[in-house]
Amino acid sequence: MIDPVELTARLIQCPSVTPEEGGALTLLETILAEADFTCTRADREGISNLFARWGAKGHARTFGFNGHTDVVPVGDPAAWTVAPFSAEIHDGAMFGRGATDMKSGVAAFAAAAIDFVRDTPPDGAIILAITGDEEGDAVHGTRALLDWMDAQGEAMSVCLVGEPTCPDTMGEMIKIGRRGSMTAWITATGVQGHSAYPHRAKNPVPAMARLIDRLSSHALDDGTDHFQPSTLAATGFDTGNTANNVIPAQCRSMVNIRFNDAHSSAALSDWLCAEAARVTEETGVGFDMDIKVSGESFLTPPGSFSDLVVRAVEAETGVTPELSTSGGTSDARFIKDHCPVVECGLVGKTMHQVDEQVPVEQITQLKAIYARILKGYFA
Amino acid sequence: MIDPVELTARLIQCPSVTPEEGGALTLLETILAEADFTCTRADREGISNLFARWGAKGHARTFGFNGHTDVVPVGDPAAWTVAPFSAEIHDGAMFGRGATDMKSGVAAFAAAAIDFVRDTPPDGAIILAITGDEEGDAVHGTRALLDWMDAQGEAMSVCLVGEPTCPDTMGEMIKIGRRGSMTAWITATGVQGHSAYPHRAKNPVPAMARLIDRLSSHALDDGTDHFQPSTLAATGFDTGNTANNVIPAQCRSMVNIRFNDAHSSAALSDWLCAEAARVTEETGVGFDMDIKVSGESFLTPPGSFSDLVVRAVEAETGVTPELSTSGGTSDARFIKDHCPVVECGLVGKTMHQVDEQVPVEQITQLKAIYARILKGYFA
Ligand SMILES: [Zn+2]
Ligand SMILES: [Zn+2]
Repeated sequence: MIDPVELTARLIQCPSVTPEEGGALTLLETILAEADFTCTRADREGISNLFARWGAKGHARTFGFNGHTDVVPVGDPAAWTVAPFSAEIHDGAMFGRGATDMKSGVAAFAAAAIDFVRDTPPDGAIILAITGDEEGDAVHGTRALLDWMDAQGEAMSVCLVGEPTCPDTMGEMIKIGRRGSMTAWITATGVQGHSAYPHRAKNPVPAMARLIDRLSSHALDDGTDHFQPSTLAATGFDTGNTANNVIPAQCRSMVNIRFNDAHSSAALSDWLCAEAARVTEETGVGFDMDIKVSGESFLTPPGSFSDLVVRAVEAETGVTPELSTSGGTSDARFIKDHCPVVECGLVGKTMHQVDEQVPVEQITQLKAIYARILKGYFA
Repeated sequence: MIDPVELTARLIQCPSVTPEEGGALTLLETILAEADFTCTRADREGISNLFARWGAKGHARTFGFNGHTDVVPVGDPAAWTVAPFSAEIHDGAMFGRGATDMKSGVAAFAAAAIDFVRDTPPDGAIILAITGDEEGDAVHGTRALLDWMDAQGEAMSVCLVGEPTCPDTMGEMIKIGRRGSMTAWITATGVQGHSAYPHRAKNPVPAMARLIDRLSSHALDDGTDHFQPSTLAATGFDTGNTANNVIPAQCRSMVNIRFNDAHSSAALSDWLCAEAARVTEETGVGFDMDIKVSGESFLTPPGSFSDLVVRAVEAETGVTPELSTSGGTSDARFIKDHCPVVECGLVGKTMHQVDEQVPVEQITQLKAIYARILKGYFA
């Protein structure tokens, strides 16, 4: 029996601030190899990634777990109650960077998987795809693992991501998708001039103001079956001009859109450009758009996989989890192109904060949830 | 006979960059005192000002001239064709800082006034009120002269300001008023937040954008009898935010209004506040206005004084000047509270520029115009 609390502590003691491996993946590799998992390091461009499989390659019933061992920086260590890599337990909670996000999750699924294959070896396979870069730019993390798996003919039938998914109470939420996210950096270019003679200039400021007002006033949708309404936030608008008598030649703004499955980034880009063109027609001020798409929206429609996860959470916590698509991005956005993906983890309240901490009983509970999911999947 | 060209050269050679007196007012004081002008330095707070009167104090027919001897900085002297304080003449033009703005104007009216009182002493008085701070913040310049004159019981019946008033051709324009100018620095305050959850924040950017669009789209008027339409220019809009996922708590904008005699700064301030209140009602974002009024609009209605100036310009140049109210501010905005004021000078094209220069014949012509105005006034 692997103790997930002890394993969480040993992982926290590895100082694996992105992009440092810090010994965390090496520790997991040792433990998994001892349990007859075939382990391969799928490192890329200085980022460490661990692939581990129990059972036959290419088996039609392959259950995958995904997670990361890298953590965000600790900030000022003096602000912490305990040393951030000590994993000390106070009043039933383990403190340390990564305690909730997400060394406890990795420890819980590794422990559950090892115990499961030892106790009741299934007719199927289990893959653990664990990256050392989720908190960084994630270019050579889970993506590299998936690329490597594709090249090797390795595939997961379904995948569970062990990120913390509960806002406050254990068991209250799992995630079956995410809104997409994109940002447009918009530049308006007019003609500089003196504010006393605005007709000789072409002021980009009111033109941009009109565009931002229109974009912000437009309701993108009212939400869809599994998604909250899409949102648009104008987060920047700058001229850099301090001279009140000078009409600047340019100004820039920044618009961030979080969109649900009623939209694609391509259609939204077209809409942004069309609205800009309309303002150009009205004002003569030209707009330039630099659009970066962080991810499309995605959804693993409720079905047998999510049902399995819901039932396991209910059995272990007594709480029926909400099927949510809220929150920021996660590596699920890469996995969804390969197989159905659901995220299920513990309470993330203290993630990325000083004194990040996890109640030790939640770690044990999470291992039990994962074990129940494995049992159900291979039943 | 005073040669206005020689006097302009001697004034240019005084390096009187605001707030330096540079010897310019001292030179004028010497010359005017020799011609029986009563001279007094009305200095205030380190700024030099010269008051000179010929004739009886408090005479009902007192003709005033106003001008300044201070100049703007030369910038990079190496960029100049000649040394900026050398007053060298090339191809019939005198080069130097202040050549058009406005040492030539001061030289022309001083020369005209001296010759006039010597040749045909009038039944009346002539006042020259010359400041050393028009290009700076002008708080202790012409305003100090006018305060001092009030305190002394000195008054002008009419006043001619010798600033350059012609855009391109000698004689084409005199000025009988000016639009007012005011600037509002507007701060919008909302609630900071994450762009993924805009409903938990209160974004000041779209609220300010709506306000700026409305203000900029509103036509203040279509112009009045003697004024061009009033204008509003949004010259700034800044958040200082570079994080595309952060909704900032505040943003600032800057709006400059040039307004004609259809408006007062008080009424415009009320309008700005009312429009802001409307957007607050719609968005919940609060606005704070910091309004600075540079000057109200003013007009010396066309009449006997402007007629006199127009006829003199016509006689000397063959050109009928337009009665304009265009352009930036001048010290006429202070004088208009004391007596009718008209501005009449030469071509200002190169003012404040590198290689500022004046055709020497324009200086002689300007002296002749001023002499004709004096003759007409005292006829
Ligand atoms: Zn995480
Ligand atoms: Zn001037």
